[in-house]
Amino acid sequence: MQRHFEKELESLKTSLIKMGSIVEDAVGIAIKAMTGHDAETAQKIIDGDERVNILEMEIDNAIVDLLALQQPVASDLRLILAAQKINNDLERIGDHAVNIAESARSLARMTGNDPLLELPKMSEIAQSMLRNALDAFIHRDPSLGKSVLAEDNTIDDLNREMTQEVIQLMKKNRETIDGGLELIRVSRNLERIADLATNIAEEVIFITEARIVKHHAGE
Amino acid sequence: MQRHFEKELESLKTSLIKMGSIVEDAVGIAIKAMTGHDAETAQKIIDGDERVNILEMEIDNAIVDLLALQQPVASDLRLILAAQKINNDLERIGDHAVNIAESARSLARMTGNDPLLELPKMSEIAQSMLRNALDAFIHRDPSLGKSVLAEDNTIDDLNREMTQEVIQLMKKNRETIDGGLELIRVSRNLERIADLATNIAEEVIFITEARIVKHHAGE
Repeated sequence: MQRHFEKELESLKTSLIKMGSIVEDAVGIAIKAMTGHDAETAQKIIDGDERVNILEMEIDNAIVDLLALQQPVASDLRLILAAQKINNDLERIGDHAVNIAESARSLARMTGNDPLLELPKMSEIAQSMLRNALDAFIHRDPSLGKSVLAEDNTIDDLNREMTQEVIQLMKKNRETIDGGLELIRVSRNLERIADLATNIAEEVIFITEARIVKHHAGE
Repeated sequence: MQRHFEKELESLKTSLIKMGSIVEDAVGIAIKAMTGHDAETAQKIIDGDERVNILEMEIDNAIVDLLALQQPVASDLRLILAAQKINNDLERIGDHAVNIAESARSLARMTGNDPLLELPKMSEIAQSMLRNALDAFIHRDPSLGKSVLAEDNTIDDLNREMTQEVIQLMKKNRETIDGGLELIRVSRNLERIADLATNIAEEVIFITEARIVKHHAGE
């Protein structure tokens, strides 16, 4: 029984890592589709989200099965409950990748060439936060998790800057309004991806240090 | 042991209902602050979010304690895992109420009187979806939960309409750009609240009918 439980727990971790890797790719490809004005690739990301949704349900079912199998010790219990949250966070990151891909598709259809402003920097930071949060989970590394928390303010600031810059452009030239709104949308979605990466990092710290850092990251 | 467990389970449900009622109020008050150009009330909602965050952590801790106490039967296990998700959804709804309150504060400072367009209708639907999802949870009523799922498309359509209407205004008159962006932000946050109410309704149906409707609501 115990051995079976541990095998199932290992398989749960593997599934989460797989899910993490899929959404990490989706975010990266959605951003490339935007910078490359590539509507076709953007469409692939939109169509591929169904796979993420199915994986989320499979992981949720595995969690119920695991808890029904036997009463886990406290540390495994924490891991399993955190796994449910991380699973949900990853599915939401997948949704944000779809939103970015939808904006990429709209931008690719527009004739003007919008300046990307802070977006390349923001997407670099958001992707690195997501990668580090997942690595922190894989290697149970709370200090890597903490480095993710430290980055969240940077991306919030960039999102605000970006929004203000786009508003200035829109006020100067109404032709930029449609494209500008898509840029603001991408910026906001990157900011949300960074938030969710922060959530995952908090969960990792919680699992490894058994304390809740959530809502107290800045203290 | 069994009796203690059932008492704790009952207390978990009560805490979730309390949390639900707090965020439901926060959404309603944030919307009133917006329609009433009331920056002071908006600020109260922003300041009050800390209480929601603390309650979320308390409920999460209660869930760990409950699962550590004894191995629940399958139906209780489903309820407890769904409770963790609902708790998280409610905390996010609280965040969206804060976003709406921030926009309300910005709009109250602007001199022009922006037309609210689809927002009153949208907020009525989003609030009714949230109320019904919480009632479905309280009374374990899957058919009420299903009525929530049916409303989600309406609000998605209204959000799209609203965004297009605001874009037209912004193109006609650049003076409306700042206010218009806040209106789009409120519209998007209402749409997200409706999404999260839908998630809660799906969890209720899952608890009561033990089947996953998520990602298949429209089928």
